[in-house]
Amino acid sequence: MEFTISQIAAMLAGEVKGKGDDKISMLAKIQDAKKGQVSFLSNPKYEQFIYTTQASAVIVSKDFIPRKDITATLILVDDPYISFTRLLEEYHKLVSFQKSGVEQPSFISEDATIGKGFYRAAFSYIGSNTKIGDNVKLYPHVYVGDNVVIGSDTILHAGVKIYSGTRIGNNCVIHAGTVIGSDGFGFAPQDDGSYKTIPQLGSVIIEDNVAIGGNTVIDCATLFGDSTIIRKGVKLDNLIQIAHNVEVGQNTVIAAQTGISGSSKIGENCLIAGQVGIAGHLTIANNTGLGAQSGVSKSIKEPGRRYMGSPHIEFGNYFKSYAVFKKLPDVNRRLHDLEVKLQKPQNNSLHVD
Amino acid sequence: MEFTISQIAAMLAGEVKGKGDDKISMLAKIQDAKKGQVSFLSNPKYEQFIYTTQASAVIVSKDFIPRKDITATLILVDDPYISFTRLLEEYHKLVSFQKSGVEQPSFISEDATIGKGFYRAAFSYIGSNTKIGDNVKLYPHVYVGDNVVIGSDTILHAGVKIYSGTRIGNNCVIHAGTVIGSDGFGFAPQDDGSYKTIPQLGSVIIEDNVAIGGNTVIDCATLFGDSTIIRKGVKLDNLIQIAHNVEVGQNTVIAAQTGISGSSKIGENCLIAGQVGIAGHLTIANNTGLGAQSGVSKSIKEPGRRYMGSPHIEFGNYFKSYAVFKKLPDVNRRLHDLEVKLQKPQNNSLHVD
Amino acid sequence: MEFTISQIAAMLAGEVKGKGDDKISMLAKIQDAKKGQVSFLSNPKYEQFIYTTQASAVIVSKDFIPRKDITATLILVDDPYISFTRLLEEYHKLVSFQKSGVEQPSFISEDATIGKGFYRAAFSYIGSNTKIGDNVKLYPHVYVGDNVVIGSDTILHAGVKIYSGTRIGNNCVIHAGTVIGSDGFGFAPQDDGSYKTIPQLGSVIIEDNVAIGGNTVIDCATLFGDSTIIRKGVKLDNLIQIAHNVEVGQNTVIAAQTGISGSSKIGENCLIAGQVGIAGHLTIANNTGLGAQSGVSKSIKEPGRRYMGSPHIEFGNYFKSYAVFKKLPDVNRRLHDLEVKLQKPQNNSLHVD
Repeated sequence: MEFTISQIAAMLAGEVKGKGDDKISMLAKIQDAKKGQVSFLSNPKYEQFIYTTQASAVIVSKDFIPRKDITATLILVDDPYISFTRLLEEYHKLVSFQKSGVEQPSFISEDATIGKGFYRAAFSYIGSNTKIGDNVKLYPHVYVGDNVVIGSDTILHAGVKIYSGTRIGNNCVIHAGTVIGSDGFGFAPQDDGSYKTIPQLGSVIIEDNVAIGGNTVIDCATLFGDSTIIRKGVKLDNLIQIAHNVEVGQNTVIAAQTGISGSSKIGENCLIAGQVGIAGHLTIANNTGLGAQSGVSKSIKEPGRRYMGSPHIEFGNYFKSYAVFKKLPDVNRRLHDLEVKLQKPQNNSLHVD
Repeated sequence: MEFTISQIAAMLAGEVKGKGDDKISMLAKIQDAKKGQVSFLSNPKYEQFIYTTQASAVIVSKDFIPRKDITATLILVDDPYISFTRLLEEYHKLVSFQKSGVEQPSFISEDATIGKGFYRAAFSYIGSNTKIGDNVKLYPHVYVGDNVVIGSDTILHAGVKIYSGTRIGNNCVIHAGTVIGSDGFGFAPQDDGSYKTIPQLGSVIIEDNVAIGGNTVIDCATLFGDSTIIRKGVKLDNLIQIAHNVEVGQNTVIAAQTGISGSSKIGENCLIAGQVGIAGHLTIANNTGLGAQSGVSKSIKEPGRRYMGSPHIEFGNYFKSYAVFKKLPDVNRRLHDLEVKLQKPQNNSLHVD
Repeated sequence: MEFTISQIAAMLAGEVKGKGDDKISMLAKIQDAKKGQVSFLSNPKYEQFIYTTQASAVIVSKDFIPRKDITATLILVDDPYISFTRLLEEYHKLVSFQKSGVEQPSFISEDATIGKGFYRAAFSYIGSNTKIGDNVKLYPHVYVGDNVVIGSDTILHAGVKIYSGTRIGNNCVIHAGTVIGSDGFGFAPQDDGSYKTIPQLGSVIIEDNVAIGGNTVIDCATLFGDSTIIRKGVKLDNLIQIAHNVEVGQNTVIAAQTGISGSSKIGENCLIAGQVGIAGHLTIANNTGLGAQSGVSKSIKEPGRRYMGSPHIEFGNYFKSYAVFKKLPDVNRRLHDLEVKLQKPQNNSLHVD
């Protein structure tokens, strides 16, 4: 993966000022970059570094006027930050899509099918009657159970576990150690105080363009025909708990260590911070924001509002209440003082302290 | 796994009304069921669907009197919901116990033993001197260390990691990615500000009929001869932390993302909600209930009570306090108003605002 | 691993009183110990057991004067507790370092290198251009990606996943299921309400003497050349979330289920309890203590202080406020009573209730 500066400029519709034939193999920050690397200058605070950088090329604004000599070749573009980001993305695709072929030993059931351009790493496992699309990457120790369907361009990182019957869309990325389709937490109390396991026979559906972090767990639904559903474009962080029969609406983003209890339905375009807890059987309106560590125990019906606290209250109000909470010993003392004053004859007690 | 309707009726001690020889291969909800599937009608709200369902058979109450024609064959039972649940369970057993034999490559130490009727998936690992009972299923990427004992009818799902020396009972289910027997978190502070690792040499004991969710972690005890103990019938959800030397009493149920610190002893038949934290070296009485996100920092001695908050207070009281918390800015204002009033001569200040 | 009592005494610079040639194969608590095991007596409360223990040897203080006959051989040392701990540690090393060699099938890229004295378990995976030092143990199902560097004497337990580009120091221990180097949670909002993934191209650096628990996740940094950094001597418990570009300072200890958001910088020698949440882009001073379940949303600049609550406030103040929180319904009632009193003519309303 080595490109000439001219090739990179072409990708970015930029103009080369300097040695277009020099080769680039890496991207780096302007203060750290070395020969063979390309960097960018966007924030004027970093301008000083462009005069000393060892980068072979720097992406700069068309409007940039150097105040000293610059050794690096320049790539002139409209917006250096956007261009650099696009380059990062291209590079990333090249790296993550370069893995291909089959490493051995790996396991694929005779009746499973997999499309073109795949990567099946050593110790990956594909169960019976499973159908996998094109350009799918299965990293080492990935387990895909029976009767699973996976779309195209999806990446399962090392050690992802997909239970039987799960459906995953196109262009999804699931990070290492995540578990999809484990049994929901359902137990029927018995007369002797013990619990009997309620069999969990539903599945999980993950639509297109979903990203899931590492060591997250998504349980299957309880009944046949039912599914826990992660709608398209949802982004889930690490160590999240999604219980049975939950539905997470399109483009909702959930930060790490949040948990959603069984059968709750989260709206679209919600922003849910880390360590939030949502009780079961609730409905959360679209565009809801939930602050870190908040706890939701009732449905939220009005869309577009933000909440905080456990149980959740309106975001700003939580902090107003908390500001007084911090002063509660003082509040208590003031209240006590008033009580004392009022226990005494009023007309001569007012100026005691 | 295909049964005739008569066979299913026989399992349920029910009576067939219709075509007993038709075949059933799946279970489904009455509004979704298709030909070849069996469903049930329990809640009268769903009665409408029985007249239009495509299910081949529907389990109904003996007392059910149809108001229109029904195409489906009926299975008449005392309690359709219980019968359907039993059927689900039977089906589940059939599915989960159908896996058998050895897939290759798998690894088993020469001196390990395993009973009859097992499933050892590809990439499963069994360490030295480990003894495994009958009808145990080890899914792909399961690791079972050295000197482990596992009872009969236990299922370890994909990627479960069992450290050396762990003992697991009969009829347990452990979901994917869960770790049993990792080192307790013990470090001795040194004079230079660093910490020295205290070796963790104890083990974990998991008794019979325990269910554990995905990506949960249970640490081993510190000293030889000591164990972290999960008593029989305990149900643990996903992403739970059980620290070294903890004991969880019989039939206690713990929801996802809860953490229990070292050496705490949880009673029997407790119900612990999600994201709860319990500090170390505590004793929690039997039948204790802990609300979501509560934090327990002192032992709970009286059995059968419910708590909430961090630190925990009596359940109802937490919500009464929280109701006032929400109005704290108002409380503060009211208090201020009183202070102002009392700073002024009382006889003419009362009606100022 | 069998030693004579004399050999053990030699390791501890202790003096043997009894049969130095008897053999020891295990360590145990004095009340449980059996023949062939060594125990210790430190706490006088346990003195009774030394007269009845079946242990072959007991480590005791030089100053210990028995009040009855003792069957066990004694090993006399300055501090029995310290000696026993040292022995535990030696034993632990012997156990964990006894694994060696290569089990098959395992996978190592042709251009990867590994030092002397390693253990590469079955189903372990080593990617391309990865360099591993001496005496490193890779347990079953460990994944080490491409271009990874691992120092000497480091142990990766079963199912640990190390993404490409990670650097890990000497003498580290990482427990089962932990993920190092997964993508940071970065998404750019688009005009249509969807999010575009921001490629995560940085890495993770873990310095020497770091211990990490099970099923923890550490994300990589966003840009090339940047790293999420875990400084030397840090101890991380189970199920912890460390987001992209975080730095955790030397000898800081973090308990289970805590989460640190992107780009936050934690000082040295901090003690962070369980289920704590730290927001992004903060700086936490050295020697900071954070109580369980606290939430930090602003930087902490003064070193050596303790905090509690969400958002965090000074530790003692939190509990003082919380003490009043518990009585808030009462506070509200008292306030109401005063209001009622002040609404009435003051001179005759004071003794109404």
